[in-house]
Amino acid sequence: MSVIDAWVAKGAKQKLVREKIDVGPLGPEDVEVQVESCGLCHSDLSVLKDDWGLSQFPAVLGHEVIGRIVEVGSAAKGLKVGQRVGIGWTAGSCMHCRPCKSGSQHLCAQAQPTIIGHHGGFANRVRAHWAWTIPLPENLNLAEAGPLLCGGITVFNPLVMYAQPTSRVGIVGIGGLGHMGVKFAAAYGCDVTAFTSNESKFEEARGFGAQHVVSSRDPAAIQKLAGTFDLLIVTANVPLDWNALMASVAPNGRMHVVGAVPEPIAVAIIPMIFGQKSLSGSPTGSPVAMETMLEFAARHNVAPQTEHYPMSRINDAFERLESGKARYRIVLDADF
Amino acid sequence: MSVIDAWVAKGAKQKLVREKIDVGPLGPEDVEVQVESCGLCHSDLSVLKDDWGLSQFPAVLGHEVIGRIVEVGSAAKGLKVGQRVGIGWTAGSCMHCRPCKSGSQHLCAQAQPTIIGHHGGFANRVRAHWAWTIPLPENLNLAEAGPLLCGGITVFNPLVMYAQPTSRVGIVGIGGLGHMGVKFAAAYGCDVTAFTSNESKFEEARGFGAQHVVSSRDPAAIQKLAGTFDLLIVTANVPLDWNALMASVAPNGRMHVVGAVPEPIAVAIIPMIFGQKSLSGSPTGSPVAMETMLEFAARHNVAPQTEHYPMSRINDAFERLESGKARYRIVLDADF
Repeated sequence: MSVIDAWVAKGAKQKLVREKIDVGPLGPEDVEVQVESCGLCHSDLSVLKDDWGLSQFPAVLGHEVIGRIVEVGSAAKGLKVGQRVGIGWTAGSCMHCRPCKSGSQHLCAQAQPTIIGHHGGFANRVRAHWAWTIPLPENLNLAEAGPLLCGGITVFNPLVMYAQPTSRVGIVGIGGLGHMGVKFAAAYGCDVTAFTSNESKFEEARGFGAQHVVSSRDPAAIQKLAGTFDLLIVTANVPLDWNALMASVAPNGRMHVVGAVPEPIAVAIIPMIFGQKSLSGSPTGSPVAMETMLEFAARHNVAPQTEHYPMSRINDAFERLESGKARYRIVLDADF
Repeated sequence: MSVIDAWVAKGAKQKLVREKIDVGPLGPEDVEVQVESCGLCHSDLSVLKDDWGLSQFPAVLGHEVIGRIVEVGSAAKGLKVGQRVGIGWTAGSCMHCRPCKSGSQHLCAQAQPTIIGHHGGFANRVRAHWAWTIPLPENLNLAEAGPLLCGGITVFNPLVMYAQPTSRVGIVGIGGLGHMGVKFAAAYGCDVTAFTSNESKFEEARGFGAQHVVSSRDPAAIQKLAGTFDLLIVTANVPLDWNALMASVAPNGRMHVVGAVPEPIAVAIIPMIFGQKSLSGSPTGSPVAMETMLEFAARHNVAPQTEHYPMSRINDAFERLESGKARYRIVLDADF
């Protein structure tokens, strides 16, 4: 099982080409998974374009994997061949630092991203550390579950950390992450407001469970919401009017950014002091958080709205993603 | 009791002059207090200079009052004439908004600052709403307690909200607020690091309870602390290297600003996302938080290090404060 069949980016911004790669023997703590489908996340595009200066080429992208275990390393725990599993942004962590030992493995400074210096899920097989190979609940809609493994946990984890079903939650940006954020926040029992600059998404946002929809291009509408949100989750990764958004946060509330905005975020601290407000960020979530999210998604029928492509059309799928037209998340079905 | 004897600022940046002011009849929910002493806080200077554009002149400043109740309004609750009390930054709040009704009266949007549009504590008598007239525990060191009412609660409240005795806490800026922050954090049981740009304060900071002292002018020393602090409380009100300070915060940690920095605080969000970190602020604290702080201060002998002036030397005291030489907090003893 040391040779995989993968879609490979030879360098930044290049078309992906199908190649066989010898990935060597399976590590004792690792698990090998036969890929059934893999979501296409905006961060795959960022790594392909080397937007963050962290990419390593040749690269096999893809980090929202749904598949079935085909091999288990000699020291891997709690998993067995044939089991349905998911793999997300992280393929491994050190397991012995303070964050790892305290259950925040997603904050491990040595965490191994699935698609940087590691072969990701746009392949027939993919590997991950056993702790990061997430068992799937039986009643999960597997065909649509891939995007939950990265995009889903990214918006679900802030709800678990900072919201209650009684909270007023705003979701800024209704795209791949944001539309799952609206669905999760609605299922969580919150009062949900969707912010989008795209009026064509207003009705869809309501369909996802938003009680209120606001144009993020309408400063007057945002001003009317001053002091409203206990939790505002920003999924956009572009500069916004941060002070106007912070003003819409309630006393004791929080603006939480999960979009990787490259520009510094500048906020006036005096209104934050008087309102006892926070600005924060978070990446994905720990393995247990991911299991909890998947159980919640299965129980509440939370699934992304997807467009499916056969993996052999991966370059078309990247183009579609880059066009901004995907509604709302792309899933590639393995066809090796 | 409608005429008070007060030190009055007739306009911005003017010397204070002693005058009698008719303050009219006592409101039914208010309490009148004979001032024994009143701390001089940096925000008194900010209001005197109209740094925030919020000042109202003529002004009677002073909002760290220790005194004794001399009159109780007809509808005031829970207090009696002769009782020892303190009054801080806030002299009243609406009592019916969500923050007020949920015990976060300090976040009331209608809160009445003691020194803006209201006569403060640099006078023989001062008034406040009964809920904001804080009973003092019997074993409190009254002569030194004034500065706890504003500066003390400002640094104590973040500890209660965000720290545990097991936390690593950094206090940035060892001045009026910061030296109380070090004392409170040490009494709280935390591992405390003091950041100061003034090497002459290193030993004193250790004396206040800091286990570690770092020069805030030494970027290499700060860099060595990467990932250290569960809570970093910034008491300085000048622009700092925010990204370097945020880097010293541990995963899941928080940089909390209580200094009213007028300039926007610009932070890189991607490291905050990966470390799941927060930037936040808070003002003083609720009446119950103030009572809790005073009980804690009495039990742990936490008191500011002060310089005392008779109130008749108030203009000298303001000069001393502005010089930055006060060690560390000035208290004015009433001598009307």
